[in-house]
Amino acid sequence: MNNFGRLFRISLFGESHGIQVGVTIDGCPAGIPLTEDDLIKELDRRRSGAKGTTPRKESDMPNIVSGVFNNYTTGAPITVLFENANTRSKDYSQFLDIPRPGHADFTAQQKFKGFQDYRGGGHFSGRITLALVTAGAIAKKLIHPVEIKSDILEIGGNPNIQEAIDNAIRNKDSVGGIIRCIATNMPAGLGEPFFDKTESLLAHIIFAIPAIKGLEFGAGFEAAKMWGSENNDNYITADGKTDTNNAGGINGGITSGNDLVLKVVVKPTSSTSQKQRTLNVKTGEMTEFIVEGRHDTCIALRVPVVLESAVAIVLADLMMQEQQIPKVYEKK
Amino acid sequence: MNNFGRLFRISLFGESHGIQVGVTIDGCPAGIPLTEDDLIKELDRRRSGAKGTTPRKESDMPNIVSGVFNNYTTGAPITVLFENANTRSKDYSQFLDIPRPGHADFTAQQKFKGFQDYRGGGHFSGRITLALVTAGAIAKKLIHPVEIKSDILEIGGNPNIQEAIDNAIRNKDSVGGIIRCIATNMPAGLGEPFFDKTESLLAHIIFAIPAIKGLEFGAGFEAAKMWGSENNDNYITADGKTDTNNAGGINGGITSGNDLVLKVVVKPTSSTSQKQRTLNVKTGEMTEFIVEGRHDTCIALRVPVVLESAVAIVLADLMMQEQQIPKVYEKK
Amino acid sequence: MNNFGRLFRISLFGESHGIQVGVTIDGCPAGIPLTEDDLIKELDRRRSGAKGTTPRKESDMPNIVSGVFNNYTTGAPITVLFENANTRSKDYSQFLDIPRPGHADFTAQQKFKGFQDYRGGGHFSGRITLALVTAGAIAKKLIHPVEIKSDILEIGGNPNIQEAIDNAIRNKDSVGGIIRCIATNMPAGLGEPFFDKTESLLAHIIFAIPAIKGLEFGAGFEAAKMWGSENNDNYITADGKTDTNNAGGINGGITSGNDLVLKVVVKPTSSTSQKQRTLNVKTGEMTEFIVEGRHDTCIALRVPVVLESAVAIVLADLMMQEQQIPKVYEKK
Amino acid sequence: MNNFGRLFRISLFGESHGIQVGVTIDGCPAGIPLTEDDLIKELDRRRSGAKGTTPRKESDMPNIVSGVFNNYTTGAPITVLFENANTRSKDYSQFLDIPRPGHADFTAQQKFKGFQDYRGGGHFSGRITLALVTAGAIAKKLIHPVEIKSDILEIGGNPNIQEAIDNAIRNKDSVGGIIRCIATNMPAGLGEPFFDKTESLLAHIIFAIPAIKGLEFGAGFEAAKMWGSENNDNYITADGKTDTNNAGGINGGITSGNDLVLKVVVKPTSSTSQKQRTLNVKTGEMTEFIVEGRHDTCIALRVPVVLESAVAIVLADLMMQEQQIPKVYEKK
Repeated sequence: MNNFGRLFRISLFGESHGIQVGVTIDGCPAGIPLTEDDLIKELDRRRSGAKGTTPRKESDMPNIVSGVFNNYTTGAPITVLFENANTRSKDYSQFLDIPRPGHADFTAQQKFKGFQDYRGGGHFSGRITLALVTAGAIAKKLIHPVEIKSDILEIGGNPNIQEAIDNAIRNKDSVGGIIRCIATNMPAGLGEPFFDKTESLLAHIIFAIPAIKGLEFGAGFEAAKMWGSENNDNYITADGKTDTNNAGGINGGITSGNDLVLKVVVKPTSSTSQKQRTLNVKTGEMTEFIVEGRHDTCIALRVPVVLESAVAIVLADLMMQEQQIPKVYEKK
Repeated sequence: MNNFGRLFRISLFGESHGIQVGVTIDGCPAGIPLTEDDLIKELDRRRSGAKGTTPRKESDMPNIVSGVFNNYTTGAPITVLFENANTRSKDYSQFLDIPRPGHADFTAQQKFKGFQDYRGGGHFSGRITLALVTAGAIAKKLIHPVEIKSDILEIGGNPNIQEAIDNAIRNKDSVGGIIRCIATNMPAGLGEPFFDKTESLLAHIIFAIPAIKGLEFGAGFEAAKMWGSENNDNYITADGKTDTNNAGGINGGITSGNDLVLKVVVKPTSSTSQKQRTLNVKTGEMTEFIVEGRHDTCIALRVPVVLESAVAIVLADLMMQEQQIPKVYEKK
Repeated sequence: MNNFGRLFRISLFGESHGIQVGVTIDGCPAGIPLTEDDLIKELDRRRSGAKGTTPRKESDMPNIVSGVFNNYTTGAPITVLFENANTRSKDYSQFLDIPRPGHADFTAQQKFKGFQDYRGGGHFSGRITLALVTAGAIAKKLIHPVEIKSDILEIGGNPNIQEAIDNAIRNKDSVGGIIRCIATNMPAGLGEPFFDKTESLLAHIIFAIPAIKGLEFGAGFEAAKMWGSENNDNYITADGKTDTNNAGGINGGITSGNDLVLKVVVKPTSSTSQKQRTLNVKTGEMTEFIVEGRHDTCIALRVPVVLESAVAIVLADLMMQEQQIPKVYEKK
Repeated sequence: MNNFGRLFRISLFGESHGIQVGVTIDGCPAGIPLTEDDLIKELDRRRSGAKGTTPRKESDMPNIVSGVFNNYTTGAPITVLFENANTRSKDYSQFLDIPRPGHADFTAQQKFKGFQDYRGGGHFSGRITLALVTAGAIAKKLIHPVEIKSDILEIGGNPNIQEAIDNAIRNKDSVGGIIRCIATNMPAGLGEPFFDKTESLLAHIIFAIPAIKGLEFGAGFEAAKMWGSENNDNYITADGKTDTNNAGGINGGITSGNDLVLKVVVKPTSSTSQKQRTLNVKTGEMTEFIVEGRHDTCIALRVPVVLESAVAIVLADLMMQEQQIPKVYEKK
């Protein structure tokens, strides 16, 4: 199921080492100014290159092939393509027999019985998040005046990010982290009970981001230690602002107009330079191996823009449902 | 959006103090033995009555009105109704002006502008989870040989549940807790990348359960503190069993055949016997109030069966997609 | 798949001789005045009783059990139930072996392998159209200023309806007919290319009405005999009115503001008082039989209100997508 | 809404004179042999070139960019792209003011307020049916042993096709026609009451094909003239074959195993070499004009393969729902 969304609908495709990766955004209003440059700004935030991320130069140039005319969206589906390039010809087929711990090698094989494109993770690759960031860049244009920001709270349990990364590189191991996302200037009233509560839709798309294994809103797991009288947020203004924000801006699945606050955990990159033990499922023998080649020490560093994109996509859809975004913008 | 599911589809309706609450299950295979008694077993687990839960005697008798013939499902939509009864006639309209902290009073008003049925939480009431438990009871019949169990890990930060409840009652406050759900005998290969990953679907429905504010799979937030080499689960058997289960039985969004393990946080019941401060949004004045009447000290106590139901509903759908559940069972 | 609609969503259930038939309407805006009386007006138009329709007194009293509070819709799902009553205890199980020509006896058996509720047609019964008419009655309240009217063009090939019915009764046979539906005061711009063209959505729901076997828009099949220059409708006013309306008010799947015009064919009632030959599929022997009991001579007579309802349901959804219907009405 | 399908899902995009047209097929089983050559066979049937079709040489070479690995489908979404080429730079913007009768110029302008890509019909162009034929070519590989064939019954009311075309060319006008589609070797039991009846799903996608204005199953509109005893198809074999096939192979929305038979009307091509009158909606003056350039005399000639594709797409989805098509094929 590679589609998501009710009114702002995205549909993605592609594999890490295939020909192209892409995304189709259907239901986007007509009349939004849009060029490749608008996308590049966001896509660059996702790029590797920083310390702790893979040095691979990805081919991240977006190519808008439909749905935009005279630099404005038309109301027809917008498709954005990315060529795959710079892929190494190393032999990934070994991972069919010796599935890498933490990767999807084993589960993909169970599901697709050897037909999956296993090169570089195939359709399970983090490269597919290009599609999310592209759709998110467009969604961000719609959700005015909402602003979405993400920051890294900790890496490997350490709030000093750089120190944590240096540490991991020194240890030749990978690390994960915790990312927070905050949306400000939120409208009240978003979310569609019972099943399309704001948390439900956000959780749906956020858990589709590779490596996310936990999600909490507001006080999250801390709420389990509080009294109700502590955890409840008291209203202090007539437009619903509260003194605390343990609810993360959502009550009963509906936004309250307070900041939307959520945190996710990104697991450590599955590929690590440490020697690992795993099973050769064909021979039944335990084996040791080291994942060779380039890989991110900490994939969490690249998650903030992906997380923001996921949030923007959901908010765009919900604001469209609330008729806070027009079907067609005014022509200038 | 009160529908959920692709092949095993549920559609729910009702308000706390309305005439009836109910659920329609569409897409359920034909040929499953089903009577009201099958449902009652599960529904009873959700009932109040235990210490820490509301003494209100709910009218929880299910009434199957369609989709079952000669005690077997027919393949047509199954509708199960519950009469509402024993509702007190107290005045809930005051909460339009003085929204209760933690409740959906304010957000519902923002969204539905006064048309919402505000009595007893209306469509936001926990009573609606009757629908989930009903659908879950049916789903559990389909997902053989999978077994789902939930347990309460802690209440108010205390692993001694009874002590925690007694404490809260003594303090005249409410508490939350952490619930774990485990599914065993799991098939490998469930989950539909990119957006219908197993975590995504589970998260979608789980966050629709009132009072859930966080969810993690396997090691969850703890993974942020581990090295990759620690967090990775090493395969030890040819059918994919791993030595650890930090992934919670899911890699790349697809089940591995290891136990599915997840935890949720249930926030403290919003209604508490403590005096609370909130705003009269009409007059703009701060006011103090105490929520009167019956309410659960700890709603988390009633969540396990709801959580299991949510998991069962998703697994039934995914197993149907994998053709592991027939469209029509063999006639006996 | 008993759900239909994107924003105005209906979900129906029930069998002819089961306990209840019903419908849930999800996504209906809050603030619409609604009582059972509003529904009865439309439901009465569907009632039997006229010459040529079955004399069975159906239990057609609607019971709104959710989604309405103080006589206004709340924004939560609206469920309307109908008790089944006055069902005869005749033996329908014989039709498992001797499937009635024209009925769904054989196909239901092929699909549901004997688990289907075969009494009175079960879930295939025309009684299920109560659900459509109910949803349609609500939809009609939303689509202001659009007016929908249906009329019977011919019965048994005869534009004199009464004569045709009398003829059929005299011949102890059943007849079908052609029904036209026209929607006036149409907004331009409805329809969502490529797949949710106005014709596509209308056709989807209209072919779900039992006994409909053909549908055409505007000139329909006659267009095959015209030159392009004849068939094209020439614009004569700046708001898009055309001199002819061979397109039936839709171009490129999008409404033009001209009247929406469509015609359907309703096949003759499958139950007829004529002796029929069919096969005993168990013994393999040809057999003759006469369908006993009450049945409509001409089910087409009851279709107009059902057809209008189907059209209203689609237009409500499309007008909601165009933001021509508010999510919440103004409070009076 | 450019998506269609429950399990076999297609998503299309592109404009006539844009950069690329394409389709993503999601949910296709893994393990189907697939190369561009497989697609070309079907795409060639849609090509122009025959007398009565436009001489434009379209760039109809498919490019599979995802979802296929080692010449087999992988289970990941399959995207197929087509470059647009050979587009003339004529000025289409005049049609914003002077909408061509029969075309979507006026309705697109009403809906998209000038942002639509109006060149060559944009997203409304018949070129988009490349996407349908591509998806249909894949669907046909899945629905074994079903065979689908289409034929042209009449053009311009004349069963002599060539004569009709010659006539139209001589008259410098365009003509429409009636196309029949038959699927043989049909399984019984396809179709999902109430809303996803076989007719409903077929009608949904068929009316999305440009220029289709009518659809009938089996006897279709003729049924309105028959007695019930004539129209009913009598069973003559134990596996459900009937002596006549007035139902077109569908009863109660479910296939009976008899041939699926349907007919559509294709309206005459809107572009005609005849002088036409229309309104300049800006100046309010009537004007005469002739559509210049290349256009099909009879678009109906190109419809058969598109119609077959639409039928194949629906049958693939329904057969997947019946578990008659595996999720993953056996590896050879």
